[in-house]
Amino acid sequence: MSKVPVMEIFGPTIQGEGMVIGQKTMFVRTAGCDYSCSWCDSAFTWDGTGKEMTKQMEAEEIWNELTSLGGEGFSFVTISGGNPALLKNLSFLIDLLKSNNIKIGLETQGSKWQDWFLQIDELTLSPKPPSSGMVTDFEALDMIINNLSEGQTTQNTSLKVVVFDDEDYNYAKKVHHRYPHIPFFLQVGNENNKTSDNLKLVSLLLQKYEWLINKTMLDHECKDVKVLPQLHTYIWGNKRGV
Amino acid sequence: MSKVPVMEIFGPTIQGEGMVIGQKTMFVRTAGCDYSCSWCDSAFTWDGTGKEMTKQMEAEEIWNELTSLGGEGFSFVTISGGNPALLKNLSFLIDLLKSNNIKIGLETQGSKWQDWFLQIDELTLSPKPPSSGMVTDFEALDMIINNLSEGQTTQNTSLKVVVFDDEDYNYAKKVHHRYPHIPFFLQVGNENNKTSDNLKLVSLLLQKYEWLINKTMLDHECKDVKVLPQLHTYIWGNKRGV
Ligand code: SF4
Ligand code: SF4
Repeated sequence: MSKVPVMEIFGPTIQGEGMVIGQKTMFVRTAGCDYSCSWCDSAFTWDGTGKEMTKQMEAEEIWNELTSLGGEGFSFVTISGGNPALLKNLSFLIDLLKSNNIKIGLETQGSKWQDWFLQIDELTLSPKPPSSGMVTDFEALDMIINNLSEGQTTQNTSLKVVVFDDEDYNYAKKVHHRYPHIPFFLQVGNENNKTSDNLKLVSLLLQKYEWLINKTMLDHECKDVKVLPQLHTYIWGNKRGV
Repeated sequence: MSKVPVMEIFGPTIQGEGMVIGQKTMFVRTAGCDYSCSWCDSAFTWDGTGKEMTKQMEAEEIWNELTSLGGEGFSFVTISGGNPALLKNLSFLIDLLKSNNIKIGLETQGSKWQDWFLQIDELTLSPKPPSSGMVTDFEALDMIINNLSEGQTTQNTSLKVVVFDDEDYNYAKKVHHRYPHIPFFLQVGNENNKTSDNLKLVSLLLQKYEWLINKTMLDHECKDVKVLPQLHTYIWGNKRGV
């Protein structure tokens, strides 16, 4: 039994965040999360509201859906959630994608290890700051980062922290300084993830982005960092599945 | 005599474009260009209007200016132009930055080789599309990319093409397919590089960005590409030196 719970499959579109920002990619969103962040923009993956969207799928079914949507026009697949790291069985999909020469990007908050992490081309660990209401298990995160370092793969790992306020920013710095050798991304939090007024949203997000840039630029303890927005919200607002 | 003509030194700020988008960085802008692109947003570096801003500077003077502006708070310096590849003497600055453990990003259109290319950490080659009015010397570009491949450095190279229209897009594809192993970035052109109405500018740029994304997503001949905006124009509009 190699099925995984899939919420949506869409694309091709661009990756709007993090280390592969701008990348042409297909998306597979898995269901289920061990967290319940206050500002989660994918709460439908775990709060029950998306239950009827969820489908248990074999790797081959997922691949068929990807190729029927994207044809011959993609070489990158992003697996997101929820927390895809809850799913041991994702190894079947990952093997299948690899055997078709597809690069894989995946994001997880870093609460749980899976051996298939070592096969991900672009792995983003995004521990959650205080405003999420969650508490980071730093022992789990240490273990994950150790395993990745020892794995000696050609894979790229990065850390990404979403920042809503000063407390989040201090948390982000703590994470950056705990793992100084891992490429580090600060991302502006979206406080208005329900509004459908896109131009107002962009204007608010840009203000917040400028705030985060200014804070980081003045901070001598944050040097080798990247500060990024969520590009897709600039274009598609809070719409899902684009 | 190890001086180079410098137009402006500023930062810390973020890199708004390309392979290190979002990176906290200082900027050194050199004077002079062998091109004269129709839509150049740094025409003051070569059209005579910025003459009184230009200062012949030794590497040490540039370093002093960088540290007086950025203190201990930076680990990355971006060298831009004009075309910094015209300046053999930049080797002195590059050596000095390296000896201070500073990472270096540099962008050039790829019309001219310099041996110090091999010391750049993040090198962006940005050949200019038809709308610029320039004609690419593909032999020069071939030679540069060969030299970089043979150099076997740990350095990262990427190609970036700015796209204003369909013809530019076809040119971009030609470049991508000529050098398929080099990471490839499509960037939205800014047609309004004089306006100071920032919100209008952002709205126009987002429309153009969506156009370029849609075009690329539907194109099966463009798979492993990244499509990016110029982030700094979203925040600071067409303002200089930020
Ligand atoms: S970890 Fe991610 S998917 Fe899970 S609740 Fe938090 S934001 Fe939502
Ligand atoms: S190559 Fe760059 S600096 Fe030179 S004219 Fe063209 S856009 Fe301007």
